[in-house]
Amino acid sequence: MPNNHIQIFDTTLRDGEQVPGCQLNTDEKIEVALALEALGVDVMEVGFPISSPGDFHSVNKIAQIIKNTTVCALSRAVPKDIEVAAQALKGAARPRIHTGIGTSDSHIYDKLKSTREKVIERGVAAVKYAKSFVEDVEFYAEDAGRTDNEFLAKVIEAAIAAGATVVNIPDTTGYCLPWQYGEKIKFLKENVKGIENATISTHCHNDLGLATANSIAGVVNGAGQIECTINGIGERAGNASLEEVVMIMRQHKEMMHDTRINTRCLKATSELVSSKMRMPVQPNKAIVGSNAFAHSSGIHQDGVIKKRETYEIIDPNEVGVNESSIVLTARSGRAALNYRAKKLGFNVTREDMEGYYQEFLHIADEKKVVQDEDLISLFSQTEVKSA
Amino acid sequence: MPNNHIQIFDTTLRDGEQVPGCQLNTDEKIEVALALEALGVDVMEVGFPISSPGDFHSVNKIAQIIKNTTVCALSRAVPKDIEVAAQALKGAARPRIHTGIGTSDSHIYDKLKSTREKVIERGVAAVKYAKSFVEDVEFYAEDAGRTDNEFLAKVIEAAIAAGATVVNIPDTTGYCLPWQYGEKIKFLKENVKGIENATISTHCHNDLGLATANSIAGVVNGAGQIECTINGIGERAGNASLEEVVMIMRQHKEMMHDTRINTRCLKATSELVSSKMRMPVQPNKAIVGSNAFAHSSGIHQDGVIKKRETYEIIDPNEVGVNESSIVLTARSGRAALNYRAKKLGFNVTREDMEGYYQEFLHIADEKKVVQDEDLISLFSQTEVKSA
Repeated sequence: MPNNHIQIFDTTLRDGEQVPGCQLNTDEKIEVALALEALGVDVMEVGFPISSPGDFHSVNKIAQIIKNTTVCALSRAVPKDIEVAAQALKGAARPRIHTGIGTSDSHIYDKLKSTREKVIERGVAAVKYAKSFVEDVEFYAEDAGRTDNEFLAKVIEAAIAAGATVVNIPDTTGYCLPWQYGEKIKFLKENVKGIENATISTHCHNDLGLATANSIAGVVNGAGQIECTINGIGERAGNASLEEVVMIMRQHKEMMHDTRINTRCLKATSELVSSKMRMPVQPNKAIVGSNAFAHSSGIHQDGVIKKRETYEIIDPNEVGVNESSIVLTARSGRAALNYRAKKLGFNVTREDMEGYYQEFLHIADEKKVVQDEDLISLFSQTEVKSA
Repeated sequence: MPNNHIQIFDTTLRDGEQVPGCQLNTDEKIEVALALEALGVDVMEVGFPISSPGDFHSVNKIAQIIKNTTVCALSRAVPKDIEVAAQALKGAARPRIHTGIGTSDSHIYDKLKSTREKVIERGVAAVKYAKSFVEDVEFYAEDAGRTDNEFLAKVIEAAIAAGATVVNIPDTTGYCLPWQYGEKIKFLKENVKGIENATISTHCHNDLGLATANSIAGVVNGAGQIECTINGIGERAGNASLEEVVMIMRQHKEMMHDTRINTRCLKATSELVSSKMRMPVQPNKAIVGSNAFAHSSGIHQDGVIKKRETYEIIDPNEVGVNESSIVLTARSGRAALNYRAKKLGFNVTREDMEGYYQEFLHIADEKKVVQDEDLISLFSQTEVKSA
């Protein structure tokens, strides 16, 4: 059975870029877009052209440059938005317009001051109008996470009948639990007429820390595209992390799903986005955090030294990290100390090691992290055996 | 039907503190321990006393001071570890010893160079020995995530028969998918004789970004305790985030599970731990990140201004954050600009607004974030209506 190819729709330059402090100028956006193309994303959403002249200009420039990836622009279900998105995408090798409307009661009644019937009408009109400019039209049902499934199915059915090639089911507020989101996708798969003519897309926010799990639950239940961002940036607590959803499918072969992402570019792309957008990645971030492959406790260090797989499920090289690091602290054990001694060229006997280790613990309690220079002074009584 | 009380076992001062750069001195650990007691955690694991004299001393001091929370110390299934843990816990109002051993094939054969039979024997002996010092003994089956369920059930059954009050099922390497981890807990619940005499605990690592989802899958399938840390710190990509698992249960009342955490202390505790441990929290971290309640796109800002619940599922006050913030950038719309104008005391007519908005977009494309002082100079032609 061949793997099911899951499309990666990166929205770092749209949902990510709209975050306070993350705004990029056109040259910076082009640099990120080229990195995303090299990473192998299937689609990149690069802006919301109606929102400002600067954003329009950036989308337009990227559309000229990117040749191997679908370039997508966002719009509301508003004719002017769609026209401007289509204009911005002019010259793109593979243009996609992303348009849609809120479908939850909260969005329909509180935000749009509208009705369910009118919302379906506006959605259908938007898809049809977008189709007059480009073939590839993605429809989003905003706040689908809180939309009741029966009504959502009606909206999606109408959008597909109007010509949508992709239907996006956003958990806009990051509210769903994984099994709830999975059931929603399953319901659509089973109840929407014509669903086989469109790709279902996930777009999960991380307000409760569940964006990654929800996206994976979506895929398992029939979604064919995941919307995500580098480092999980995006509105509020952000979107599903590209690096996490990709590595889950790569590591769990039994899922029979995979992407065409070149994972060895993950770390470098993460660093590029973090530095350009001035958006720090916390050390304990999965896959791309600076500690993601660092082992500090004695028990873990001992295990990793004996065999990497004891505590590490991903080979750091697979995601572009050079080496799993062993950091020496008061929680480190004799095995790690001995390993580092050897790396530094000291050959310590078993009898001498005990004394060194006690001395090491005192240094560690005081200095927190013991550096190579501390060890060199500690071991300097010992003869250097190898260079 | 009353809510099922889920115990929160915080391991910020053990699994969190063992991270490179996070080491605290005794006074700092006491400060964090007091904050955790105020937050309302049920158990705090505060160290691994055999690992260093400094760690022993800290555990011992905290054991004297904390009165309303169970204080727990870690040990391996080694008599000396258990003795030292018991010594460190002397004087604790509610002491718990946490002991255990690796149960996956990788741990048994590669790390311990042992056999399945011997590992069960050592686990049983460790629990019995710990019971000679304290009543409350928690047993961990290290790398349970990669241990086959039949064997795991045998180990857990033996540990409970030996007197374990809590049985911890760690996904040590952060490998499991949520439904796999959930099935594991369900299997134990259904197949371990005497399981009703112990509490099942989750301990999930975040290597694939699934620690929170896995912990919740565990609870739904019968676990009664979640091990977690503030800000999700811990070995490598860290542990399940306390703030995330707690807020999931608090928000999703239909789960019928809750904790006794005083959520209004979450933000302050997060800041304390981050600053003491020099461990930054990324802005897009769920619940406690600086952007977790910040809205920047025009569409979102407009929605939140009309009704908070449109884009926000958690009232920021509930987690100790003062206000959801509206940040003005080139992605902001007219509604947000008008809202801020009113807050600053300017009363802009609908006709004037359009001109101001175009001018605002130019400022925003250039300055990225538009500050109140920029707006004041923008609107200064307008009369101030209210103070």
